[in-house]
Amino acid sequence: MFKKILAAQKRLQGQANVTPVMTSRTLNERVGAEVFLKCENFQRVGAFKFRGAFNAISQLNEAEKARGVLSYSSGNHAQAVALAGHLLGVKTTIVMPRDASAIKRAATEGYGATVVEFDPEKMTREDIAAQMSEKADFTVIPPYDHENVVAGQGTAALELLEEVGELDMLLAPCGGGGLLSGTAISAKNKAPNCTVIGIEPELADDATKSFRTGRLHTVHNPPTIADGTRTPYLGKITFKLVREYVDDMQTVSEDAIKEAVRFLFYTMKLVVEPSGGLGIAAMLSGVVKPKGRVGVIISGGNIDGATMRAILASD
Amino acid sequence: MFKKILAAQKRLQGQANVTPVMTSRTLNERVGAEVFLKCENFQRVGAFKFRGAFNAISQLNEAEKARGVLSYSSGNHAQAVALAGHLLGVKTTIVMPRDASAIKRAATEGYGATVVEFDPEKMTREDIAAQMSEKADFTVIPPYDHENVVAGQGTAALELLEEVGELDMLLAPCGGGGLLSGTAISAKNKAPNCTVIGIEPELADDATKSFRTGRLHTVHNPPTIADGTRTPYLGKITFKLVREYVDDMQTVSEDAIKEAVRFLFYTMKLVVEPSGGLGIAAMLSGVVKPKGRVGVIISGGNIDGATMRAILASD
Repeated sequence: MFKKILAAQKRLQGQANVTPVMTSRTLNERVGAEVFLKCENFQRVGAFKFRGAFNAISQLNEAEKARGVLSYSSGNHAQAVALAGHLLGVKTTIVMPRDASAIKRAATEGYGATVVEFDPEKMTREDIAAQMSEKADFTVIPPYDHENVVAGQGTAALELLEEVGELDMLLAPCGGGGLLSGTAISAKNKAPNCTVIGIEPELADDATKSFRTGRLHTVHNPPTIADGTRTPYLGKITFKLVREYVDDMQTVSEDAIKEAVRFLFYTMKLVVEPSGGLGIAAMLSGVVKPKGRVGVIISGGNIDGATMRAILASD
Repeated sequence: MFKKILAAQKRLQGQANVTPVMTSRTLNERVGAEVFLKCENFQRVGAFKFRGAFNAISQLNEAEKARGVLSYSSGNHAQAVALAGHLLGVKTTIVMPRDASAIKRAATEGYGATVVEFDPEKMTREDIAAQMSEKADFTVIPPYDHENVVAGQGTAALELLEEVGELDMLLAPCGGGGLLSGTAISAKNKAPNCTVIGIEPELADDATKSFRTGRLHTVHNPPTIADGTRTPYLGKITFKLVREYVDDMQTVSEDAIKEAVRFLFYTMKLVVEPSGGLGIAAMLSGVVKPKGRVGVIISGGNIDGATMRAILASD
C-alpha cells in the first residue's frame, strides 16, 4: 500500500495543495511536547478528502471516465468528488440525503456535480447509489472503503513527515478509517518508531470498539458534533488496515472537541471543523499524553456558522 | 528609514514568527488578480504589533531597560509590549481604560505586565502615561508614533516581498499609520513600481482625509467594528511617512469589513479580526480594483467570540 501512496503523491502534484504545517509555542507549553499540525483545513474544498477523490478518479480508464462517477456523501467527500471530477473532465453525480445542508449542496453543485436527493428514512445512501450505478453504469467512488481513496488520504501524513522529519507520535481523526489507515501506512514506512493513534468522539466509538475487539462494531447516527465521524462503521478494507497499522485508538468527549475548536480559533487563529480538532482534543483533555515530537492531522475546516457560533458561545 | 527596517528584521530573527503567506484560487478568481496574504494573525500575540514593540524595546539602553517601559493600549499593542518586555527581561506597565475587555487585560497580565486602569471619561491615555512616566521614569513605547515601532512593523511587508518577489499592488490597514508607513517604506525600496494603498473604515476615515488634504484630521471614538483602527489620528511621524510613501488611501463600509471576515473564515479558514480584513474588504467590495500580483497585509486575528458570532450571524 505504501507504494500506492507514493504514486498518489505524484498524481496529486500541482492539483492538491501542499498544506502548511503550523506550530504554536502556547500549545507546546500546554501539552509538554513539540506539536506539528498538518493543516488540511487549507486543502482544496477545505478538507483532506480532495486527495483521495482525485487519486481515485484520475486512475479510471477512459471508458469509465466517459461514463462518469457516482458518490454518496452529505459532507466533504461530496465536494471533493465534484471538484476532482471537474478538474479531470469527468461527470459527477452525488447522492445526498434530502436534509443535507443547503450550503454543502450548493458548494457541490458549484463544482459542477449533479445532486440526486434521497429520503434517508426510506433507504440508505449505499442502496440508492448501487441502484443508480447499475442503471447508468457509473463508477462508484466511495468515501473511504477503496484502496485508491486510502492511498490519496495517506499523502497528507507523507507530506508532514517529509517536511518535519521523524515523529514520536501521530494523531489522526477516525470516521470511516480512510484518513487514519492512510496516515498509519505512511507513518510506519517513513517513521517506523512513530506511535499512530486514531481519535474518535466517545459518542461515535465504533472504530475504537472494532479495533479493540477485532469484530466490526456499528454506531448508527451518533449525535456527535464531529459530523465527519458520523460514519456507522469502518469499511472492509479500512478495518483491516486500521487493525494492521494503527497502534491505538482513543475517544474524546463532546466538551473536549468543542474546547479544541475554541483553542484552535482563539490561540492559533485556525478555522477547524469539530472532526478536525479531535487530535488536539485528545491532547488538551489528557486522553493522550503526548511525548517528544507529535504530529496531528487537522482533517478539515468546513464548519457552518451556526455550529461555530454555538461552540464560541458555550465557553 | 529602510535601513532601520533591515536592522529590525535582524533583531526580530528567532523572536518574531516569519508568518506564512496564504493564497486562494477562489479569491484570485473572484477579484481577477493573484493575491498573496501576509498572515500576521499568525504572529506572536496574534498581530503584527509584536514586531514594533520588540524592535523598540530591544534598542533601549541598559539603564532604560532596568527602569522599565510604559505603554497605553487597550488592544494588541498592550500584549505586544508585555510579551516583548517579558522576553527581554524588561518590566512593563500598561495603562488601560477601565472598560477594556477582560480577556485582553488577562492576556496582557499573563505575559507579566502590570496593568494600570484609568477612567477614559476623566482623562486621556496619553495624559496618564505622561504623568506616570514622569513619576517613575519609565520609557514610553507608543503604539505607532515612534521610528523604531514603524521600523518593526515594516518587516512584515519586507518578508512578504522577499518571499513572493515583485508586487504590483500592496494593501495595508491603517489605524495610527505605523503598519501602513512601515509597509510603504519596505515596498518602495524592494519593489519601486508597487502601488501602496492604505485602507480605513469609512467610519474612521481620519487618515484618508489627512492624506488627501495634507492637514491632520481627527475622528474621535469612531464606532467601527474594526477596533484596531479606532485611533483618532495619525501620529506626527506616521503622518509625514504616509504622505511621503503611500500612493493612495481608500475607505470601506462596515458591511464590507464583515463580509471580508466571513470570506476569510469560510473560504480561507482563517480567523482574522475586522481590522485585519480591511484589504480583503476593499477588493471584494470593488473599492480597490486589484491588478496583477497583489499583496495584502492581514494585520491580526484577535477577535473576541461575541464579535465573531455577530459577524457570522449577520450573513
